[in-house]
Parts: sequence; C-alpha cells; structure tokens
Amino acid sequence: MVVVMSPDATEEQIARVTARVEETGGQAFVSRGVVRTIIGLVGDIDSFHGLNLRSMPGVQEVYRISDPYKLVSRQHHPERSTVHVGPAGAEVAIGPGTFTLLAGPCAVESAQQTLQAAEMAKAAGAKLLRGGAFKPRTSPYAFQGLGLKGLEILADVGTATGLPIVTEVVDARDLDAVAEHAHMLQVGSRNMGNFGLLQAVGDAGLPVLLERGVNATVEEWLMAAEYVAQRGNLDVVLCERGIRTFEPSTSTTLDISAVPVVQATSHLPVIVDPSHAGGRRDLVVPLSRAAIAVGADGIVVDVHPDPEQALCDGPQALHGQELRELATACRKLPPVVGRRV
Amino acid sequence: MVVVMSPDATEEQIARVTARVEETGGQAFVSRGVVRTIIGLVGDIDSFHGLNLRSMPGVQEVYRISDPYKLVSRQHHPERSTVHVGPAGAEVAIGPGTFTLLAGPCAVESAQQTLQAAEMAKAAGAKLLRGGAFKPRTSPYAFQGLGLKGLEILADVGTATGLPIVTEVVDARDLDAVAEHAHMLQVGSRNMGNFGLLQAVGDAGLPVLLERGVNATVEEWLMAAEYVAQRGNLDVVLCERGIRTFEPSTSTTLDISAVPVVQATSHLPVIVDPSHAGGRRDLVVPLSRAAIAVGADGIVVDVHPDPEQALCDGPQALHGQELRELATACRKLPPVVGRRV
Amino acid sequence: MVVVMSPDATEEQIARVTARVEETGGQAFVSRGVVRTIIGLVGDIDSFHGLNLRSMPGVQEVYRISDPYKLVSRQHHPERSTVHVGPAGAEVAIGPGTFTLLAGPCAVESAQQTLQAAEMAKAAGAKLLRGGAFKPRTSPYAFQGLGLKGLEILADVGTATGLPIVTEVVDARDLDAVAEHAHMLQVGSRNMGNFGLLQAVGDAGLPVLLERGVNATVEEWLMAAEYVAQRGNLDVVLCERGIRTFEPSTSTTLDISAVPVVQATSHLPVIVDPSHAGGRRDLVVPLSRAAIAVGADGIVVDVHPDPEQALCDGPQALHGQELRELATACRKLPPVVGRRV
Amino acid sequence: MVVVMSPDATEEQIARVTARVEETGGQAFVSRGVVRTIIGLVGDIDSFHGLNLRSMPGVQEVYRISDPYKLVSRQHHPERSTVHVGPAGAEVAIGPGTFTLLAGPCAVESAQQTLQAAEMAKAAGAKLLRGGAFKPRTSPYAFQGLGLKGLEILADVGTATGLPIVTEVVDARDLDAVAEHAHMLQVGSRNMGNFGLLQAVGDAGLPVLLERGVNATVEEWLMAAEYVAQRGNLDVVLCERGIRTFEPSTSTTLDISAVPVVQATSHLPVIVDPSHAGGRRDLVVPLSRAAIAVGADGIVVDVHPDPEQALCDGPQALHGQELRELATACRKLPPVVGRRV
Repeated sequence: MVVVMSPDATEEQIARVTARVEETGGQAFVSRGVVRTIIGLVGDIDSFHGLNLRSMPGVQEVYRISDPYKLVSRQHHPERSTVHVGPAGAEVAIGPGTFTLLAGPCAVESAQQTLQAAEMAKAAGAKLLRGGAFKPRTSPYAFQGLGLKGLEILADVGTATGLPIVTEVVDARDLDAVAEHAHMLQVGSRNMGNFGLLQAVGDAGLPVLLERGVNATVEEWLMAAEYVAQRGNLDVVLCERGIRTFEPSTSTTLDISAVPVVQATSHLPVIVDPSHAGGRRDLVVPLSRAAIAVGADGIVVDVHPDPEQALCDGPQALHGQELRELATACRKLPPVVGRRV
Repeated sequence: MVVVMSPDATEEQIARVTARVEETGGQAFVSRGVVRTIIGLVGDIDSFHGLNLRSMPGVQEVYRISDPYKLVSRQHHPERSTVHVGPAGAEVAIGPGTFTLLAGPCAVESAQQTLQAAEMAKAAGAKLLRGGAFKPRTSPYAFQGLGLKGLEILADVGTATGLPIVTEVVDARDLDAVAEHAHMLQVGSRNMGNFGLLQAVGDAGLPVLLERGVNATVEEWLMAAEYVAQRGNLDVVLCERGIRTFEPSTSTTLDISAVPVVQATSHLPVIVDPSHAGGRRDLVVPLSRAAIAVGADGIVVDVHPDPEQALCDGPQALHGQELRELATACRKLPPVVGRRV
Repeated sequence: MVVVMSPDATEEQIARVTARVEETGGQAFVSRGVVRTIIGLVGDIDSFHGLNLRSMPGVQEVYRISDPYKLVSRQHHPERSTVHVGPAGAEVAIGPGTFTLLAGPCAVESAQQTLQAAEMAKAAGAKLLRGGAFKPRTSPYAFQGLGLKGLEILADVGTATGLPIVTEVVDARDLDAVAEHAHMLQVGSRNMGNFGLLQAVGDAGLPVLLERGVNATVEEWLMAAEYVAQRGNLDVVLCERGIRTFEPSTSTTLDISAVPVVQATSHLPVIVDPSHAGGRRDLVVPLSRAAIAVGADGIVVDVHPDPEQALCDGPQALHGQELRELATACRKLPPVVGRRV
Repeated sequence: MVVVMSPDATEEQIARVTARVEETGGQAFVSRGVVRTIIGLVGDIDSFHGLNLRSMPGVQEVYRISDPYKLVSRQHHPERSTVHVGPAGAEVAIGPGTFTLLAGPCAVESAQQTLQAAEMAKAAGAKLLRGGAFKPRTSPYAFQGLGLKGLEILADVGTATGLPIVTEVVDARDLDAVAEHAHMLQVGSRNMGNFGLLQAVGDAGLPVLLERGVNATVEEWLMAAEYVAQRGNLDVVLCERGIRTFEPSTSTTLDISAVPVVQATSHLPVIVDPSHAGGRRDLVVPLSRAAIAVGADGIVVDVHPDPEQALCDGPQALHGQELRELATACRKLPPVVGRRV
C-alpha cells in the first residue's frame, strides 16, 4: 500500500500516519519529494485496511498495490484450476486444456420443450445442460419461470439425456430445492452482488457458475468469487456475459478481453455466454468463435426448438442452421488454440 | 406497440404478424411504406409481450410505446405521492411540498458512536435516522456490520433522540428482525435487482427506501419499485445515489437529472444520497445544494463523530464545519424552490 | 511517481529501474516489502515520463502522483480566475463571486430569428449571446449552419442588442473569420480532442469556451485546456455539457459533480450547459437551478422564438413560460449561494 | 418514421402533424389506440427530418426506422466491399475472403527504428506498414511525433521493404503533405467527429482507415464514414479500437461484437486494433485471435524493436516471442474461418 501525502501536508501529519501504521505492526517507508511525501507500507495488508488512512489529515491518496482477493488469485494458487461437474464417475471438466460447451433453454417451459432443447444441445456437442427454472426478470409482469416444477423437468431431462444439470438459484431460500436437482449452481449477473446468496451457495457443496454483473469490474467479480471461496468452495467457474455500455446495437457489450485478464490474475476457469452478451441470434456464432479463439474454457449458449414460441429471450436462441454452425466451430476451433474438445 | 418489418419482409410474414396479434384479441394497423411496412398494435399490451413478435420472420424491430410500469406511474396516479415514515402520530413526510433530511452513520459501530451521530444529525435538521446494521461489502474481509446487535443500538438511539429509523435489509431471511426495529426498510443499490428481496420487502408492511442500482436505468429502477408496489405496498421512496461511468474523480456519477426525470413519469417521492454518489467529503455540501435546487424531496447524508476512525466510508462522512454548512443549505434553499423544511 | 515492482521482480530489475531514474537526474527511494518492492521517484516528473518505465522488465504498475496539467492547475495559481469577455470597457466577467447567464439560438437561421432570440436572452438576464454559425452535425445530411453569413448576422445582432458574441469554431481554417466577428471562441465537445484546433484557438488572442467531450474525463478536459494555455492564453472558461452513459432518458448525463471537482483542482471558471446535457426542454430549468446551487460560475442555455420551426435541437430550446422561470431562478438563487448576478 | 402521440394529445394536434407531413409530399397513416395514437410516415425520410416533429405539441416520441446512413449501407450496396491499398499493380486487398495484417511502430522515432519495425512487421506477415508521424497526444508535454520528417522516413522505409504506407492525418492543414507520402490515410479515434477533416480526407483520393471514437456508437461511426463517402470516396476501411467503459483493467474495452454488427449493416471492410484496445502487450495475441475468429477483415498491431525505449505506447508493442505467436495465429486461424491470408 502506498500513501501519497498532499503537497501541503505537515511533518506532524506525516508522523501521525507512520505512527498509525506502526501501531498495527507494519512498517512505513517515507520518501520525501520536492513537492510531496510518499509513504510505502510494508506488513499485513488486511490490518492496514481498517486504518482508514484516507480519512487522515494531509493524506491525498492511498493506492492499494496487491490484489484484494486471495483464495481465487494465482498468487496463492499459480496453476489454473479445473472444475469438475456432474455425478462421480461421469464428471465434465471445465478448465485449461479442454473446451466445454454448455447449452440449453433459457427458460424451462415444458417437459417436451426442455427435452427437445437438451437433445439439440447434445447433438451440437454440449456436455452440460443449462436451463432456467427460476428466472429473474426486470418486470414483475414477465414469465418468472416454472420454479420447482421446472427443476423436476430439468432433472428428468438430465437423466434421459445423460447431461448433468446447471441451473440458476435466485434466492437463498430456494437453495435446498435447487441443490437437490442440480449438479452446478448458477448465480446470475443480477445477483453477483447478493453477498448472502454467494455465501449460501458457497456452503452448498456444489460447483458454482458465477456470472459477472453487467456493471461489475473484473476485480469486483473476483471478489464475489472470493465470497464463495471463503466458505470453502473453490469450484467456481466464472462466466463473462457482457457489460453495460453506451452502445445500443447489442443488449450488452461482450468484454472479450476479460477472459485473458481473468486468466492472468485468477486460477479459476472462465467461460463466455455469447447469447445473453449480444442478445441477437445472428451474433451468437461469431461471438462463440471469438470466445474460443481468445482462450475461454467454454461457452454457454441458449437453444430452443421453436424460438418464435419461446417465453424468454427467444430472439437469441439458436436452432437449425445456426446451431449446426456453432457445432462446427466448437469442433474445429479449439484444437487450433491448443484445446481438446 | 409498433412492429417494424424488414425491407424484404414478405406479405405472408406481415399476415402472420397481424394474425398473431388478432388471435390475442388485439388490433393491427398496417402502414405500407415505400421501403418497409410498419404495424401499429392496439389492445392489451401485456398480452402482446407474450407474443415474442421480435422472433417472427420478417420482423426487424419492435418498439414499446407505453411505459412498462403501472402502479408507480403517473399515468395511473397523476398526483405525486407523499410517504409517511415513523410511529403513528409522529410521522415524517417525504414528498412534494416538503424537503426532508435523513442522516446518520454509514455503519453502526457502537452505541456511543451511533448516539453521537444521531445527535449531530438531529442538530443539523434531520428528521429520520439512517444507519447500517447489515453492510453489503465488496470484500468478504471488510467489516460487515454489527447485525442484530446493530439493530438494537439503532432502536435505542431512535428512542433516545425521537428519530424514526431507516436501515438496510440485505437478505430476505433477516427481514423479520429488521422490520421489528425499523420504521423504513432500505433496499441498497446492490440489491435493486434482487427480486425476491423486493417482493419480501413489499410484503413487510413498512415504507421502503429503494436505492437505484449503479448500473440501472431509470426505467429498471421504476420496474424494481413496481415489484414492491405489486405486493400492495406503494409507500416507496426512490433514492438516486450515482451511476457507474468512466469518470474516476468521483466514486460514481450523481445523475442529478434522474430527479426531474422520475418526477415526470412516476408519482413516487425521490431523494438523493450525495455522500455515496461522490464518495468525497468535499462534494457533499455542493451536491446537497444541487439536489435541493433540482427539486429532490429529500437527501440522505452520512455523518460520523470521528470520520478518521469510521469503519466504513469514513472519507465521505460529514462533521464539524461541513455539517454546519449542510444544515444552513437545508434551511435556506428549500424555500427558494417552493418547499417547506 | 511511484513504481510498483511485480512480486517476482529480481534485484537486477530493481537496480535497472533506479539506475534509469538516476541517469535523468532524479532520485529513487526503494521500499522493500514482504511481497514486493515499491520505488518512489523524486525529481523532475516530465523527464520521468519519457523513461517508459512501465515497459521495463519486473515493473508491474506505475502510478502518477501529481496532476499532469500545470498552467490550469490551482497548484500553480491558487486563486480562482475570472475571465473577461467583450469589448474593452464593456467586459462581462465569468468567475467566482458572479453568476453569468449566456443564452441564444443553438443555430443562427436568419437575421430575424437571431434578433428575436437575442432579445429573449437579454430579457431573461443574459449577458452574452451564444449562437452557432458553424454547426458540427452527426449526419452530413443535416443542416450544417449558415457559416460566414451566420457570423455576420451574429455580429449585427450583437451590436443591436449590446451583447458580446460567443460562437463555435469547428475548423482551424475558419479561425480568422470567426475571430473577426466573435468576442469568445467556443470549442465544442466533439473537438475537445482536436489538438490542432486547441492550439490555433490558443494563438487567437480571444477568450475560449471549452466544452467537455462527452467521453472525456475531467483530467483529459483539463489537459485540453492546458493545450490552449500553453499557447499563452489563460482566458479559458470550461463548460460541462453532459457525459455519455448507459442511461437513455436524457441525451447525455449531466455530471454536476464535475463543477466542484474542477474548482478544487483548477483555477479556471466552469459553467454548465443544461440544454445540451439533458436534450429535453422540461429539464432545462431544474438542471439550471442545480447548476447554480452546486456553484457553477454561469450557465449557457438555448432559446428560440419558435422551437417548432428550429433547424437544430428544437426539442430543448426555451421560450415563453419556461424562459421566465429560468430568469427567475437566475435572479433568486445565486445570492443564496453567495454570488452576484 | 413513426410518430407516437402522447396519451392526452388532441385531435387538432394529430391533424397538425399529418398536415405537416403531407405539406412535404409524404403520407401519414394514423392508428388510433385505446391509450394513444401512432402515426406512420411514408415518403422521403430526409424531408421529414427537417420537420422537427419532436417539437410539435402532443408529440411524445419520434422513432426513426431506417438507418440514417446511405452510401455506406448494405441496403444501397448489398455486397461487402474490398478496398485496395498501395501502388497500382501491387495493391493490398482488405475485404471479405481475405485476412490482412497491418503492423508497424506506433510512432516513427528514427529511420533505424522504423526500418527495424517494418522488417519485423513484414516477417510476421504484414502486408501494410502503419506508423505515426503526427501523434495526437492527451498531454501537450508528450512527444507529438516527428511530423514531416517522420513522413519521409516512412516513405523511405516503405520503398525499402515494399510495404505500402498507412499513416494518420490529424489536421486538414497537413493533408497535402501526408497524402504525398502515404497510400492510405488514417483518421484516428479522437478525430472521428472532426467533420472538416473527414470531408478533406474524402476529397483526397486515397483509401481511408477510419477508427471508431472511443465514445462513438456504431451508428455514429458509420455516419462519420458517410461524411467521407459523400465526397465520392467509398474506399473506407473501419477500425474498431475499443470503447470507453467503467472497466479499468484494460485501456478501453474492445467491442468485438462491433465487427459482425458492422458487417450486417454496412458493406465497408472492418478491422481491429488489439494493441490500442487493450493497451497491454499480454492481451495482443489473444485479442488478435478473437478478432480473426469473429470475422474481422484484418488487424493492425503495434511492433517495436525495443519497447522499453519506445517514445509512445511502449507497454503494448510486440516483439520477440509474442510477435512470433501473432504470426502463427495470423497464418493458422484465418483458413479455419474461411479466409485466405
């Protein structure tokens, strides 16, 4: 941590900062410049946070030097991690070296629609079935998902197709029910800052798919993962699904750079959701190709047997020719960038 | 609702859209242009949403014309509303005609600190005490609030000073405990999209202070209020606390325009939080003046008896001279813009 | 300047950084932490910039400590400045202590429209006439302004009403013509990063009204002012006119906090353009009140005798009742915040 | 164009809108809904723009339906275009079917450095040499480029290596000098809204590389291209180089979706600049791979023989191992997505 004093800081103010640091067992190195003084802190960073140095008289700025996350950081775990999802003996790996396709219907609408979507997903090469039973919607008047009934459908379809289930949990009170039917718990972008849910999910003992909030920096996203990890659960897969910007031609702006940025600083696997990032069917295949090429550990894609009739996000669901193109890309591109499918 | 067909849409595709609209009991007015056809829909808008028209072949764009919120809209309730907070016989009004100051410590740290902060707030003209017992923090390693103990302190200090209590609820599972001690429930910006919490708060029978998410459009914010209202609770006060932009000199960018924008479209009262919007003590007084002048129904401000020792957001808490300036602004400016203090 | 070495930086890499700093005559203070080493640089900051320290092996981050602008900074000129605009003996002051209204038509369309707008502006209390002869437009098919003819109209109307003229220059090749007719040169937001134009305007010997780019940070805006100042022209007035964000209900988001932020760090006067910031007539009066209350040194407002017929930005031009409300706010509010009208 | 009347619009106001449309030779189709009336306009869109319908009483919203650009639109030129750069007989193609690498030094610093960078670029597979002689810099105290001397160096190095030259023009007054030495004129992101420069470049008779402004929507970018095209120059290549968002880990956020979005609506070629988008050397190769896979017609990359000594943007310039990885990606990936190298 570095404390920058303002140009008119007094000697007394400087002394007060160094005294405060030393009280907590840290060391303070003072560099006196022509215009101002800089104080470098050495010691236990966590204890410095409580000091509230930024509020002390004469302090202009405090720069944090090291990353605020620990358990999810590569500094603490240099090798990139692989997360395994699914029943023992039939786990699906998400991590370096492999490329994993997750697919399914945005919302579970009926047993038949879910089964058809799952079969489409499987035929396209998907190894995990992602579908929504609880849907967080901007409007209270929009379809909110089938809830428990949807979980049962997912579980049945998963058994029928042999695909492990990934589904979203939107409320800590639903957690037991969701955990009973799912192999991986999704925390959606709207809940990335719902710390109680993150902690509850961390306690649940299942792998977690943690979407980035549309307004979250990479650092905040990793801090959310730290909330899960702190409960003893390091099986977290991060999912980039677009951030909010001024550009209106896509529903959000896919931050493709976030994939290598995360991989440089965290050991957790990171995948991309090209369906929700763009919100446009015609962009799903090109964005999927970009995600594979940039080095994502997987992608998650919406499919629907009849997008015109979809109750949720129909405009972005793949089927027919586009799904075949996606399958081709998922087969041909990963080997070119050094990954097994 | 207006459906714009793409230039190469066929007659059959146009007919399919109109047929679909008419099946639900609506009417479709077709305007054939030189380049393209436009279809205006008349009837029950909610039924149109389920139609998923955007996914139909030949459809280029669908424009929603009317606002998606109802209960919180001025179209359904033209007069602006006043929300009353506090025990019967001693309610504090927030709404048009008045200007209300809410103040208190960002986090409850101890009985003494809370009492001092409350007395400072009251001396500055505050009519409601806002303090945090449950603190949602970006880092799991940061101070998370005193929890239940903090609620008890708040209740005691509220009784001692005669100020009704406003405090944040971060998890639906804590709701009963919070509701027992508070007169108004705050939903913080991180939870604006936590729909389960909004519904639970809507059921709780207390007025709600609903912060705007730092990434939320005004429309999404009003939709969140609609979630509360739909549960039969129209006592919702909106709080603008800054949105996330590219500008780094403030912690967020106070969207001062949101105040008149909300007041033009919704009947709910709207206040401003200048402390969290800027994140800088030196901006609190100027931003408070701006909020009063733009026509806000109130402001909510952090105060602390000793900001250097604050466990949370010390750099923005007011005390001493700045708090006196705030009190002056809150006394002198509202009458100039037609409000009673 | 502070150089943060990465945790695995070698002693040799640290030595190379310090050697490089010392070669340029600076001093390097090395603080060795448990995890990493921090190097504080003392000396001539400008010479450090050329060192490209960020590219050196072992360097993780370089923090600039002092502000990059000089001439426009309060560190070099602690007192806030007043800029005088207009013919000798009849100058209008913009600066601390006063509040100045600038108004006029967004675009000069005809002699009659300009005269009417100027008279409206004057009646509302405007001290300077702002109108556009050269209009930068997003579309090449939109009205681009009357050009030279417009300048002549402005000059005539200025003489007739006694109001000094403020008008935009969009191309350095037009500068002589504009300077001949104007008392203050406006550089619009689209040209804030047009450094050749900034330098040309700096050479022209007239006061400058420098709009913030809709994508510019406050620091970049002040650096643009530094380009003008570096040519020996310190008569620069800054104009906040909204930044681009995700919020669609206003054309841009007025960054009201930028006013006190600028005033804390630069001595230049700063005004607000509530017309272009919001792009909505119904927001002009509330945003003007907010601008006055936050401490702006003035505002600049679009007026039009017949907004329905305006060739440019009609939806935001004031007339009639709203203009009277603006005049009232400009008369009553400034004294409450300590300014003469 | 669709005009939405407000719910309380009168019959007279509706009649006034339709009369105004019909005066200009258009047709107005009125659809009366339960709550409000919608008017669809048919006819010459350009004439409607001048009508300023948004300012008419009773009008709530005006939606533009068709794209505002014409010459650069696929509606007017359905086939995607190829732009040819370089001397007759040795032109380099940028367009569909091919993948083109542009590379060179961010700034021309000396003859030797430029020659070395050009040779590195050529060895990596570059077909065009991009280097800067005029550098627009945020700070007036930063290196501004060698100017005319730099142009001469570029021309010499181009001749020596056989690579056509792409270089930036920052001021219309320099255009003749730049055009004398360059084969393609670059308009940088800061000047995307400098309409005078766009027009001058449109008149110069050379192909243009038009960077997107960091704050520009795709539509504004295409309108800037329309400014060039309107002067009779359709040889415009668009360059996505990142947009400004709240994310601090990269200098801007590469909007990878913009590539397919542009290709769906405009016939112009579009390339990506991964060096400036991320501003980090470690991201250049992954972002280049993403750009190729998403379907970009080329990429432009900074190289430098000695990044530590670079006078401009050293932290992002490639050399050594990373440049070899880039060359590999540029050779192996394009064929997988159907492009010749």
